[in-house]
Amino acid sequence: MCRAISLSPNSVLYAIGSRSFEKASRFMLENGFSPETKVYESYEEVLDDPYVDAVYVPLPTTLHVRWAVLAAGKRKHVLLEKPAALNLSELDTILEVCESNGVQFMDATMWMHHPRTAEMRALLSDGQRFGQLKAIHSCFTYKADDDFLCNNIRVKPDLDGLGALGDIGWYCIQAILWAADYDLPQTVTSWHEPELNQAGVILSCGSSLYWKDGRIATFYCSFLTNLTMDLSVLGTKGNLHIHDFAVPFRENVASYYSASQFRVPIMSEHSVANDRPQEALMVGEFASLVVEIEGNGSKPEKKWPEISRKTQKVLDAVRASIEKGFQAVQIVS
Amino acid sequence: MCRAISLSPNSVLYAIGSRSFEKASRFMLENGFSPETKVYESYEEVLDDPYVDAVYVPLPTTLHVRWAVLAAGKRKHVLLEKPAALNLSELDTILEVCESNGVQFMDATMWMHHPRTAEMRALLSDGQRFGQLKAIHSCFTYKADDDFLCNNIRVKPDLDGLGALGDIGWYCIQAILWAADYDLPQTVTSWHEPELNQAGVILSCGSSLYWKDGRIATFYCSFLTNLTMDLSVLGTKGNLHIHDFAVPFRENVASYYSASQFRVPIMSEHSVANDRPQEALMVGEFASLVVEIEGNGSKPEKKWPEISRKTQKVLDAVRASIEKGFQAVQIVS
Repeated sequence: MCRAISLSPNSVLYAIGSRSFEKASRFMLENGFSPETKVYESYEEVLDDPYVDAVYVPLPTTLHVRWAVLAAGKRKHVLLEKPAALNLSELDTILEVCESNGVQFMDATMWMHHPRTAEMRALLSDGQRFGQLKAIHSCFTYKADDDFLCNNIRVKPDLDGLGALGDIGWYCIQAILWAADYDLPQTVTSWHEPELNQAGVILSCGSSLYWKDGRIATFYCSFLTNLTMDLSVLGTKGNLHIHDFAVPFRENVASYYSASQFRVPIMSEHSVANDRPQEALMVGEFASLVVEIEGNGSKPEKKWPEISRKTQKVLDAVRASIEKGFQAVQIVS
Repeated sequence: MCRAISLSPNSVLYAIGSRSFEKASRFMLENGFSPETKVYESYEEVLDDPYVDAVYVPLPTTLHVRWAVLAAGKRKHVLLEKPAALNLSELDTILEVCESNGVQFMDATMWMHHPRTAEMRALLSDGQRFGQLKAIHSCFTYKADDDFLCNNIRVKPDLDGLGALGDIGWYCIQAILWAADYDLPQTVTSWHEPELNQAGVILSCGSSLYWKDGRIATFYCSFLTNLTMDLSVLGTKGNLHIHDFAVPFRENVASYYSASQFRVPIMSEHSVANDRPQEALMVGEFASLVVEIEGNGSKPEKKWPEISRKTQKVLDAVRASIEKGFQAVQIVS
């Protein structure tokens, strides 16, 4: 993300905050930052610096509500690592403070900002090439090693208590909502046999999402399975498939595959070039919203907090369904 | 299938049976059969011909139990179109008559006989390249037109009453069992909101299959969605993906995609050539078993009826789960 901030033409990495001056200085050196970058020994000092316009918050999820609220309260725009919060109530606390302070909120789901995503969106919106949406399947898994499964913040109930659901299920859920043009499903039923660690943190789980008109979506996320980043979107007239939806295999070009009834059934590959990595494109989009707000008095773009909110709402329902023994959980729009 | 019988070196298309002599003769002419091919005006006459060694039965599913039992009773080997039967009880009736008459049974799921399938099986069995199985997703859909949805046997409760579940869900279920090396799941939970026609026949449905050790599989089948034939198999160390599992896009070569932790995460494509179409390979395998039995006194190969039986068992559970309001249905091994 530091590299992304540097690669983005409208942002400058101005300061780093860490609980440890030593760790922050080493991080700076190792990543070849400008010597002018400030190093603060506490997060408060970052927020108290009047030259800081916006903060990127990569802290463990349990700390999001505290630090995002403090940042927004000091009128810093907030780019928040996903999962945005432990639950919708926490996220709403964050979003209310952002709104009342007129700062931009965005969760750091970088693939949303890749030009491939926009091109795929155009395909899905094309009544001739794609038709009506019928089914979505998304899957994000990676094989965590023993050290990760013992020590990483993502398997600790007091740090990232949502485990695989928060870390990678977030991507799957947001991809489903994106494909459904942010129309919330009405019911969520989680799959049996999620894998949990001894502390009860989710290591793998899946869920089925239902809309009343027969549209259906499923997702699967896991720390225990070889890297997979699949997204399939099926329509009445066409299909879309990708195998690297969250993080493209290549940094400067990404492919998607489509099939349509108007062609032979063999899927065709489409490549989309990007001049900067998707993380830098995300920072660029975030920074340009900040410039609009700070420079031109614009209002924050509501689309991004709304997408985060819907994602969190579905994530909460997935978790509730697991806790209720895989019962169907209604989602209230 | 007539073409497949002709292309297979160990089988001869000897006779056609039809309720209508005219229809059968026209079919013969249109497909350029040898004038020596016999045309029978009833199925009984086919079964009464002592020169008929084996029959391929493409009748609607409701007629399978009647005609497969009659055929086996007359010691004709039976290649039966899928779905094998309306339910396990009917299939068991067929299989018992086949066994007591010493004839080979095989259901006509042709992709099982493609050399790609064997090569993929080798990958899935490779502890280094694939590791342990964790998750499977299969999907077979096609967009039926209005005529199909009104008139095809596959949407008629008195002909192919299993609808999309029988016609294409059969492939998905068998693919899952194949990937799981025929280890039956313990529980099946069908997805909400299956689409039914006015007569109650399934036009689209999906299901989740669970094993006690955390393995999971899902499938989706539909007559209402653009052509999709996806199979994804995820392991702890590698993945397998195909987009044309049931019927390869090309007749003489088929691809699969694999990724493994030992490589860069980009998936690699593997092509497998086949000298004859998969239907002809199926006929060839079936005919060689028949030759073994008739010529060398061998016993029928039990593998094929066992695979059909397991597929039917899971299919029954999917249907039962839908009928029970999407409750979990146990599968007894």
